[in-house]
Amino acid sequence: MYQDFEEASAPAASGERLKALRRELKAQKLKGFLVPHSDEHQDEFLPASAERLAWLTGFTGSAGVAIVLDKAASLFVDGRYTLQARAQTDRASFEVLQTPDAKASVWLKDKLKKGAVVGYDPALHTIKEIERLTASLDRAGIKLRPVDANPIDTLWKGRPTPPSAPVALHPLRFAGRSAEDKIAAVQVLLKTEKTDAVFLTMPDSIAWLFNIRGGDIAHIPVALAFAIVPAKGRPTLFIDPAKIGDNVRGLLCACTDIAKPAALEKKLKALGKSTARVRLDPETAPVRFAQILSKAGAKIVRGDDPCVLPKAIKNEAEIRGARTAHKRDGAAMVRFLAWLDDTAEAGKVDEVAAAAKLEAFRRKTGELKDLSFDTISAAGANGAIVHYRPTTRTKQFLRPGSLYLIDSGGQYLDGTTDITRTVAIGTPTNAMKRHYGLVLKGHIAVATARFPKGTRGQDLDAFARRPLWEAGLDFDHGTGHGVGSYLGVHEGPQRLSRLGTHAFEPGMILSNEPGLYFEGRYGIRLENLVLVTPPKKIAGGTREMLGFETLTLVPFDRRLIDPEQLLPFEQAWLNDYHARVRRELEPLLTGKDREWLRRATAPIK
Amino acid sequence: MYQDFEEASAPAASGERLKALRRELKAQKLKGFLVPHSDEHQDEFLPASAERLAWLTGFTGSAGVAIVLDKAASLFVDGRYTLQARAQTDRASFEVLQTPDAKASVWLKDKLKKGAVVGYDPALHTIKEIERLTASLDRAGIKLRPVDANPIDTLWKGRPTPPSAPVALHPLRFAGRSAEDKIAAVQVLLKTEKTDAVFLTMPDSIAWLFNIRGGDIAHIPVALAFAIVPAKGRPTLFIDPAKIGDNVRGLLCACTDIAKPAALEKKLKALGKSTARVRLDPETAPVRFAQILSKAGAKIVRGDDPCVLPKAIKNEAEIRGARTAHKRDGAAMVRFLAWLDDTAEAGKVDEVAAAAKLEAFRRKTGELKDLSFDTISAAGANGAIVHYRPTTRTKQFLRPGSLYLIDSGGQYLDGTTDITRTVAIGTPTNAMKRHYGLVLKGHIAVATARFPKGTRGQDLDAFARRPLWEAGLDFDHGTGHGVGSYLGVHEGPQRLSRLGTHAFEPGMILSNEPGLYFEGRYGIRLENLVLVTPPKKIAGGTREMLGFETLTLVPFDRRLIDPEQLLPFEQAWLNDYHARVRRELEPLLTGKDREWLRRATAPIK
Repeated sequence: MYQDFEEASAPAASGERLKALRRELKAQKLKGFLVPHSDEHQDEFLPASAERLAWLTGFTGSAGVAIVLDKAASLFVDGRYTLQARAQTDRASFEVLQTPDAKASVWLKDKLKKGAVVGYDPALHTIKEIERLTASLDRAGIKLRPVDANPIDTLWKGRPTPPSAPVALHPLRFAGRSAEDKIAAVQVLLKTEKTDAVFLTMPDSIAWLFNIRGGDIAHIPVALAFAIVPAKGRPTLFIDPAKIGDNVRGLLCACTDIAKPAALEKKLKALGKSTARVRLDPETAPVRFAQILSKAGAKIVRGDDPCVLPKAIKNEAEIRGARTAHKRDGAAMVRFLAWLDDTAEAGKVDEVAAAAKLEAFRRKTGELKDLSFDTISAAGANGAIVHYRPTTRTKQFLRPGSLYLIDSGGQYLDGTTDITRTVAIGTPTNAMKRHYGLVLKGHIAVATARFPKGTRGQDLDAFARRPLWEAGLDFDHGTGHGVGSYLGVHEGPQRLSRLGTHAFEPGMILSNEPGLYFEGRYGIRLENLVLVTPPKKIAGGTREMLGFETLTLVPFDRRLIDPEQLLPFEQAWLNDYHARVRRELEPLLTGKDREWLRRATAPIK
Repeated sequence: MYQDFEEASAPAASGERLKALRRELKAQKLKGFLVPHSDEHQDEFLPASAERLAWLTGFTGSAGVAIVLDKAASLFVDGRYTLQARAQTDRASFEVLQTPDAKASVWLKDKLKKGAVVGYDPALHTIKEIERLTASLDRAGIKLRPVDANPIDTLWKGRPTPPSAPVALHPLRFAGRSAEDKIAAVQVLLKTEKTDAVFLTMPDSIAWLFNIRGGDIAHIPVALAFAIVPAKGRPTLFIDPAKIGDNVRGLLCACTDIAKPAALEKKLKALGKSTARVRLDPETAPVRFAQILSKAGAKIVRGDDPCVLPKAIKNEAEIRGARTAHKRDGAAMVRFLAWLDDTAEAGKVDEVAAAAKLEAFRRKTGELKDLSFDTISAAGANGAIVHYRPTTRTKQFLRPGSLYLIDSGGQYLDGTTDITRTVAIGTPTNAMKRHYGLVLKGHIAVATARFPKGTRGQDLDAFARRPLWEAGLDFDHGTGHGVGSYLGVHEGPQRLSRLGTHAFEPGMILSNEPGLYFEGRYGIRLENLVLVTPPKKIAGGTREMLGFETLTLVPFDRRLIDPEQLLPFEQAWLNDYHARVRRELEPLLTGKDREWLRRATAPIK
């Protein structure tokens, strides 16, 4: 199983750990210390060895920061995680506060006096993060000081060793472009911008650039590593040599030098000595490296990680791969939904069993490398918890008359999938159908959007919300995120949200996932991945328009759709989509599954 | 007449003037000089005495900047003005370049060598403008230097004297809030933010704050002035005493000291001497004042002009006034449209005559104080020129089988109006109807939008474009701008555009004006003003939603509407709107006008 369903938290220990940390801070003359959920690579999911926040607080969510002072301690999390954080932490030790209403800087200014010094581990915070916090605390006379060694690492008994999974080369037929070609393009950019080198800190950028994949982090097939790409000459990849097998080394060495991570600091200092102009992405690079480079004499050139945009714009091979992966994944989803229809109404299927069953169907394809994230398998009221994760202890059964929400995805060599369906267990109420219809309208509004060059996520996000807004409803997450190609299921710069300031470009893949949540009752989310299509002439028009091609191929639950609620163009889209799903998936299915597919994709009107 | 229809440009002189300016620059050891379309108040429309750009280049548009070097000179304008700038300027002297494709900084870097010094008049550029340009030129080693006196002012023979129109007090029944109350609110803000004073440079902020109106600028009822509001004590209004009649002085002195503009610099230096913390809006305050304050020892606190937001959020009296003004203005528009229907088809009405007729109808209300801008009266192909201004020399006749676009507005004590209608002269083609329908759909999509607190212009702008995008069409201006209350017809911070980053708040007034333009054929624009309405519960919903109340009351041309093209909700909106227009305006009209209104507002289906 790629997913386990155990409780990950051990809050019982946090009182003692907090005490020990406070002693450590006192010794270092620090009034406070920041403990973010992050590592040196700003990974979204962390290796066990970097789960310092969970070690200290018990909280296992994917975003948050604890602040420890001598008399107080707080844990800041966003709205997704407030309930989970309260349940997982020792409330006597930590005050749980919800961002963005609560702000770490405000809390610090409230608790500390002028002149107080707060420590942070410079390897775990980005340049921009520290700049913003420094500016804010400065007004109150509070100082930030980087520590030489993270005190938690000293205190953490039995800390897991950092992961060291083997690296594989990502075949050209999936990558579509050689590492040499990608490196050359980065070097052209560096030369154009008169920069001597770029320092890469994000594992998925490195995976993309060198066409390698790893297994250091659950669900994201990357290897933890750093890289320096000079404007001229060979790059250096800083990576634990244990990860590089002989079969990989030869080919990898054709395009890059390989060095131990321990050699990195020396190399950065050497760049400084030659007063090199080194590009760093201030939003993602740990401030520690900026401090090392600057101190050694380098000139830091701020700029986006140059791999991010070309990685986001999928090439022909990646697009072809995505289509194949979605067919394969869609067939597995159909098998799962057919099984669910057959069994769930009896009330004997629970959330964990359902998630396991779906993983089994995906494994049966013979191509599954990992899940792309822990499956959200949510019965009834749990569907209203946006980032719900079922556990063996808390799992619920799927019961007749309820809605079941399943958000899941697979990692395949040819692509990463991410799909959410909400299905009726037994007979749905009229309210469920009406709400489902509103979310579906929003989904279709995005799926059918045409838009000119230059259009950004923030220009389109409201299309998904308009039907909900008209009904006095809304959802509190973005409509969509970028998705990688056998890489992270969340990637930038594209996003379909009010924060999406980057223009869509043909080849980008995004999720289209409006939702609607009623606490204590049910949640609805309908998610397909879409591909941004090239500008195309429209008959009678004067300007070419981009659009979205829906990649995901899985039926929507017809039992939850009232055709009368849909406009003619919405009905037409749904019927066309279902006809396509049937056409594409039928050859992959047999017997009862194929029959189920036919029923599930019959025209709604 | 509030509008004249003469050519304003005299490009013939620009060669000589350019030569003289170059001699002046050489004497001052400057390699170049910036000549922006602006004044010390960053007014959108300038008094004749500040039309330096027109004096130099002949170009009379409302936005642009010339750059004069010893061997080259350029005029940068945006897409609205490219054709006009080319027609108005001596092309042998000035190269006309279109922003944002062309950039002044890039052009300068291309033409100048490292070490070159470019002059600018610090009274005419904002703090941010100079910061941005400095940062950009810095990389190429080019320096910017403020000049002590603008060389154009020295060279300009017969320069008009600055305007000195009398100031009137804006009655409380229209303003809705006393000047004392507004000043007190600004002072509370200053105290909260530990700032000693705010320096106000924008005439409409000053007009709002002190409840005064002036006549220094065509179409915007403001007086050119500056003001300093201290956190404690009385404000000082710096204004030409000739503008303040005895009838005004007494009441105005109840809330503020009055000083001559010549006293301003001394007062700023005094603030510096006391090391005061002075708030300045870096986006609107001329850098000159920041330089004076800083040099004298003041601490500049950057912050929005504190009048802008409360001015944008209309109070009850202003909202009541807006509704009344729109009824009055709507009746005048209906009389005009009835007259047009009666006369235009014969082909004897020209653009200037039509605009004059409309002004006459507005004057007949007995309440018109000014037009809110020069009427865009555009026959046939001229409708495709977004900022078209008819002149006696170039005017066209309205011809059967064409479209006529009229964009106009009135300044009344109780409100400012701005309305565009596009009407068929004779029988329209099917293409005209189809295009009109697409724009109308976009207009209705905005008019009927509901949205949660926090929604910004950029979240809604695409609603107006979706029907056009689907047809491969678009328009190159924002969907709407903020509108003042007997103040500027363009005001911020709200705007309905992809640049609209400010959240809508109840009481804001905006235009809703999607369009569609076919060069050489016709233009369509449909504009109503809308008021942002307070959050309201929606049956079956869980969140309150804001919305728009349409203020403008004028029929859309039924001859251009194909009911089949509209969705049921769009038909319903149009019929409801027309019924409301009829109900509200009927009492103000008689005879043939009333009959016309009845026909024009009959249900479309």
